[in-house]
Amino acid sequence: MLKEAVYHRPKNNYAYAYDEKTIHIRLRTKKRDVSEVLLIHGDPYDWEGGHWQVYRKPMEKSGSDELFDYWFVALQPPYRRLRYSFLLQNGNEQTVYTEKGFYETAPLDDTAYHFCFPFLNSKDVFKAPAWVKETIWYQIFPERFANGEPALDPEGTLPWGREAPTPTNFFGGDFQGVMDHLDHLEDLGVNGIYFTPIFKAYSNHKYDTIDYMEIDPQFGDKETFHKLVQECHKRGIRVMLDAVFNHSGYYFEPFQDVLENGTGSEYAQWFHLREEKVVTEPIPNYDTFAFVPSMPKLNTENQGVKDYLLKVARYWVEEFDIDGWRLDVANEVDHAFWREFRQTVKEVKPDAYILGEIWHDSMPWLQGDQFDAVMNYPFTNAVIDFFAKKKISLEQFKNQLTHVQHMYPVAINEVAFNLLGSHDTPRVLTYADEDKQRAKLMYLFQLSYGGTPCIYYGDEIGMTGGEDPGCRKCMIWEREDQDRELFSFIQQLIRLRKREPAFGNDGLFSFADLKENILAYEKKSDEQSLLFIMNLTSDEVSVGEATDSRVLDKDENSFANEEEFTLSPSGYFIIERS
Amino acid sequence: MLKEAVYHRPKNNYAYAYDEKTIHIRLRTKKRDVSEVLLIHGDPYDWEGGHWQVYRKPMEKSGSDELFDYWFVALQPPYRRLRYSFLLQNGNEQTVYTEKGFYETAPLDDTAYHFCFPFLNSKDVFKAPAWVKETIWYQIFPERFANGEPALDPEGTLPWGREAPTPTNFFGGDFQGVMDHLDHLEDLGVNGIYFTPIFKAYSNHKYDTIDYMEIDPQFGDKETFHKLVQECHKRGIRVMLDAVFNHSGYYFEPFQDVLENGTGSEYAQWFHLREEKVVTEPIPNYDTFAFVPSMPKLNTENQGVKDYLLKVARYWVEEFDIDGWRLDVANEVDHAFWREFRQTVKEVKPDAYILGEIWHDSMPWLQGDQFDAVMNYPFTNAVIDFFAKKKISLEQFKNQLTHVQHMYPVAINEVAFNLLGSHDTPRVLTYADEDKQRAKLMYLFQLSYGGTPCIYYGDEIGMTGGEDPGCRKCMIWEREDQDRELFSFIQQLIRLRKREPAFGNDGLFSFADLKENILAYEKKSDEQSLLFIMNLTSDEVSVGEATDSRVLDKDENSFANEEEFTLSPSGYFIIERS
Repeated sequence: MLKEAVYHRPKNNYAYAYDEKTIHIRLRTKKRDVSEVLLIHGDPYDWEGGHWQVYRKPMEKSGSDELFDYWFVALQPPYRRLRYSFLLQNGNEQTVYTEKGFYETAPLDDTAYHFCFPFLNSKDVFKAPAWVKETIWYQIFPERFANGEPALDPEGTLPWGREAPTPTNFFGGDFQGVMDHLDHLEDLGVNGIYFTPIFKAYSNHKYDTIDYMEIDPQFGDKETFHKLVQECHKRGIRVMLDAVFNHSGYYFEPFQDVLENGTGSEYAQWFHLREEKVVTEPIPNYDTFAFVPSMPKLNTENQGVKDYLLKVARYWVEEFDIDGWRLDVANEVDHAFWREFRQTVKEVKPDAYILGEIWHDSMPWLQGDQFDAVMNYPFTNAVIDFFAKKKISLEQFKNQLTHVQHMYPVAINEVAFNLLGSHDTPRVLTYADEDKQRAKLMYLFQLSYGGTPCIYYGDEIGMTGGEDPGCRKCMIWEREDQDRELFSFIQQLIRLRKREPAFGNDGLFSFADLKENILAYEKKSDEQSLLFIMNLTSDEVSVGEATDSRVLDKDENSFANEEEFTLSPSGYFIIERS
Repeated sequence: MLKEAVYHRPKNNYAYAYDEKTIHIRLRTKKRDVSEVLLIHGDPYDWEGGHWQVYRKPMEKSGSDELFDYWFVALQPPYRRLRYSFLLQNGNEQTVYTEKGFYETAPLDDTAYHFCFPFLNSKDVFKAPAWVKETIWYQIFPERFANGEPALDPEGTLPWGREAPTPTNFFGGDFQGVMDHLDHLEDLGVNGIYFTPIFKAYSNHKYDTIDYMEIDPQFGDKETFHKLVQECHKRGIRVMLDAVFNHSGYYFEPFQDVLENGTGSEYAQWFHLREEKVVTEPIPNYDTFAFVPSMPKLNTENQGVKDYLLKVARYWVEEFDIDGWRLDVANEVDHAFWREFRQTVKEVKPDAYILGEIWHDSMPWLQGDQFDAVMNYPFTNAVIDFFAKKKISLEQFKNQLTHVQHMYPVAINEVAFNLLGSHDTPRVLTYADEDKQRAKLMYLFQLSYGGTPCIYYGDEIGMTGGEDPGCRKCMIWEREDQDRELFSFIQQLIRLRKREPAFGNDGLFSFADLKENILAYEKKSDEQSLLFIMNLTSDEVSVGEATDSRVLDKDENSFANEEEFTLSPSGYFIIERS
């Protein structure tokens, strides 16, 4: 057995409290190197007659990626304390992996050898809001969703959708427009809206805030926003706002003061200035988002900035009853600030959802003290690379997905924000070279996977668009220009996710091996077992036996008979097994 | 190259901010598998002409343990942001290790492939008090150090040192006794005292607190304690107290109330009760430390408990100017409590030292938001197993020490509490089978190693004793019964540590290979290079050439000539190289 490949370290994705009673333990071993793993465990203080009382519990293989197998076991230690090691077996070979290294047999004379989960304190348990697991999000970029109140249009606003979006043009989208079209969202079946920024800002994307306490006048006023949230809540739709706390905009008053007075400004400590006089060119002499002079980085360690931003965090929850915050460039802000942010928000609304924008491995922010989830771009990339770009093989796709699943605790995966695209990426259909069948498979995969899926406005009616600004076109409201068939398809998937017990987060996901280039996976809940099959080839393919199963859904060209399922090119089956 | 052995994950011991400008990066590879590692790094936003601007910096091999080599590099990214990967080479073989896996060449078209250290925020930098690095601790178990005020003796107090210690007997040690003997400590050269608990308690060890706001009357009163701290400070000696916050004692008033009134008590939520009526036998029906009925676990998530304990944490610092808290059973208390504890203590005294009692891998408590250090038992075990118990080989010792060094960031190692023994373990000399030469080598190793070393009271004068209660004998004050030669030896080591630039934390430690069963290591600072050589055999051994070097210290039986160093059995040399 390859000892160098074996890995475990407590208090992250490898060992964590799943709930107030349950500890999850995972182990990594070299792929196909170990046939059986037993967890050797006991209460650290449970000694009888000089012998530590230990138990053995088999671990299950929970998946494999390119190089490794992963093993899993859940247990409920009676006194919430645990010491443990791993007994690895393969045929006659055997080794025991402890915190202090490898031994031929378990060193049971001293608990100090063993990994430790010292005590399951409720306070430290990662707890995301329960409703998030049941939510299907819809992302709205307010400037481009609908213009319901032309009186608010900024100067130079262009006629809706007549021109291509540019980094600087305006089409007059607003809150009234959103309210006018809540039926569309309800009809689709989504029950959460994520709004990109709505606060007073300079640009069309509003990521360059002028005033965090004000609604941007092009969208409406506080009264309209209040009404919008209420209207959403009436329809069972939650509302999440975008908090751009890493940096302010150029016209944020404290920054204007600093531009004028340099280090003499009373707001000098609100930013990271490097010289007495503040210059924006040729290179800003203060910290910024990337190297963008108009986005000065806020000093979130400064008490004034903290007071202000935490007031903002509290205000929109307390006064407008919003349900969540999505945190822009969350990884570049200090952890200490996010801890206070979480305390502030959860104090006002314990089940508010806190979602960080982090594109890379995010375990340091997901320890229960900061975020509930992150935008799951590793998921996005795997799905896009496989289904749309066809850049990776089915094998690689499975490896990557399994890797992502094992990067985080189960409770985090259940609320991971699984998007296929956003205002920061090309649209799904464009990525898929406008191959609608492929795009459908991506939605099917997204909506039948765990986590909390998000649909980017317009994707559901077949809108296209490349990188920003292409992906920020005006929403198409003329029914005849919408792909209603795609809409119905996604609507049906959302219905299935809500109706079928194993479709969403209650179904345990696992890949199945059916046939080459056939993607197959199972979702199993206590009540139901579903099998998903997708044909990634351009040929018709038949698989399996169809006995004892019921077709829950399929594309129109695929068919089943007594013996097998025949999948059309890019076709699919959803099968309920009895 | 063995890909399965390669490991890195940011924001722990593998990548961390060393100070406000510097990021340390480490990598793990299979032992002797890779000949060169280059860090490929750049600012995530530094693109020119469509190309990400990257740099290459060689990493140094910083040590090896049983299975792995470790690589290290420090760098100061100009904008405090970093994306990076590792280029591993061995002869013609080459691979690039990224966050997303291995590639033949570095995928430089997209920074998303690379590991991310998003921003070095000062607030998140682990910062331990500077003075700790220069401190040599002395642990006092107050009941057994000196009886200076017999009037305070509890009933049944025995004559000093005439009987063996038992779990329940008393000898009347007190604060006056400590004050009477501060000359002894100053003479030895220590500049920090760690007191095991001094608060009002039931037992002789005082780990079963009755009142955290009162001094135990057997030790003195608050006035005496105040004077004691002042006396210590006058002599440049810092004072650290023991905070037993995981559990209270049986006679702690709130617990007495709970015993009486069960879940009806106003303090019911202060503990973890499982039934309405509280029983201590046959098994307590409430959570305890281990299974000890008289040590009920405190519910540190309860606001009342938090308020009380944080008041305690603040009180003794604010009113008595103590310099640090050692936290008993720190790993079983919730992380959220320790975060508040740190804020409270550092608010009153920013350079107070917070030391957790954790015997296992403690990275989750050492992220900068909780503790400054932990009691370094992995160090203790390696030293005891090698020098005293002779249970592990020199090779194993080197592997274990290197492993411990790489478990934590450098800044943490510099303040790690490196003890050889305590009130919870047999004494050094007893472990060493009373082989004084061996014990001396252990002190030499401890005091020339990084971290903040601690001497357990009486060890310096050759006291012996096995497991508790044996290790808690009364301090011997009759000069003729003290091993003064050992005292002088340790005194001399402490002098050297203070005087020689490379002896303590400023010297970078690395093992050297000289000869079989000869332990050799270098300590290098900017100013000085020291070589330590110890003969672990029972034969005389000669090593190396003695040219261009000065003998800083040696045992009396070893000798050097122009050509070589000749070490007596269990002899040593400390050599300054020019």
